[in-house]
Amino acid sequence: MKSDSINLSTNSKMEFVDISSMIQKHISKSGIMNGVCHIYNPHTTAGLTINEGADPAVQDDIISAFKKIVPFDHPYRHQEGNSPAHILTTLTGSSVNVFIENGSLKLGTWQRIFFTEYDGPRSRKIWCKIITD
Amino acid sequence: MKSDSINLSTNSKMEFVDISSMIQKHISKSGIMNGVCHIYNPHTTAGLTINEGADPAVQDDIISAFKKIVPFDHPYRHQEGNSPAHILTTLTGSSVNVFIENGSLKLGTWQRIFFTEYDGPRSRKIWCKIITD
Amino acid sequence: MKSDSINLSTNSKMEFVDISSMIQKHISKSGIMNGVCHIYNPHTTAGLTINEGADPAVQDDIISAFKKIVPFDHPYRHQEGNSPAHILTTLTGSSVNVFIENGSLKLGTWQRIFFTEYDGPRSRKIWCKIITD
Repeated sequence: MKSDSINLSTNSKMEFVDISSMIQKHISKSGIMNGVCHIYNPHTTAGLTINEGADPAVQDDIISAFKKIVPFDHPYRHQEGNSPAHILTTLTGSSVNVFIENGSLKLGTWQRIFFTEYDGPRSRKIWCKIITD
Repeated sequence: MKSDSINLSTNSKMEFVDISSMIQKHISKSGIMNGVCHIYNPHTTAGLTINEGADPAVQDDIISAFKKIVPFDHPYRHQEGNSPAHILTTLTGSSVNVFIENGSLKLGTWQRIFFTEYDGPRSRKIWCKIITD
Repeated sequence: MKSDSINLSTNSKMEFVDISSMIQKHISKSGIMNGVCHIYNPHTTAGLTINEGADPAVQDDIISAFKKIVPFDHPYRHQEGNSPAHILTTLTGSSVNVFIENGSLKLGTWQRIFFTEYDGPRSRKIWCKIITD
């Protein structure tokens, strides 16, 4: 199946956006019942992750720790000032794979899929491709 | 093929569990000779990684460095006290893909697949799905 | 389709090698028009990432930040002296998946695929397997 592009927009410099329901909508539209959904982030200052969605404080804590882990006051050579965002992109990863069963995303009890913005706010997109069983 | 769930248990707060032989058993049981095995961690305080298995000191060193990289004494908002585990989950990733050839896991010479526990000890599970060539 | 092995060599201790055109060559040779290309790193002191390729300063900045993030002066137990490389391998990840459309790698505007060497210089290899739609 050809990949689909889904648009989203972010509102802050660093922000996790829960895209789980967008992905479910994409799966439902495809009519595919069983397979693997490959979700891909085509940007170089944002990533994709799967983590807890129930308590929004978890996302805040991850962002606040990332600001401490990645050096912000550092002699970077890239002139656009967004090197920390490129570093976090490699640390987070550019894609996630989730299973589809009976037409539904199969996530763990507390899991949600997040677009991780590291250099927003911006208009962004993600690409999805489903491989059937 | 429908995904399978494999149970495991962890014995420490932070621990790497070598799951390579569990995955090989799953592949053998499936009878599939060639494909990609998607391994998925449905938890939000544990991950999956592929790294050296020969010297257990490598796993100890990764855990000991992770304790230094992720701030433990930090004003976290999430009240469960396990924010470092959620952070490490995003840094490690929730899934790994390995190739199957002639009915066997195709790993590099020193590679083993690890379940990375960051908030144990607990009963855990992983999900596997094989896509044939 | 059986996986293919692609050889490359690295020239520094830590270095990002752009492998995008090697992957494109592999896809073209396969004749496959649509699918997912799984790229796998069989080493335990090197990874794979997708990040900006236009400005080489971005790669330098990621490496320079990684040297600060991962403790180099630390009481590691592994006797080979390359524990930081093993740690960076887990932080980066061992595989990336990219979409193939109309016979071409489908990357974002600024994206390139990099082999991330953390313990070079060495002769290395990557494995590729394509799953067709």
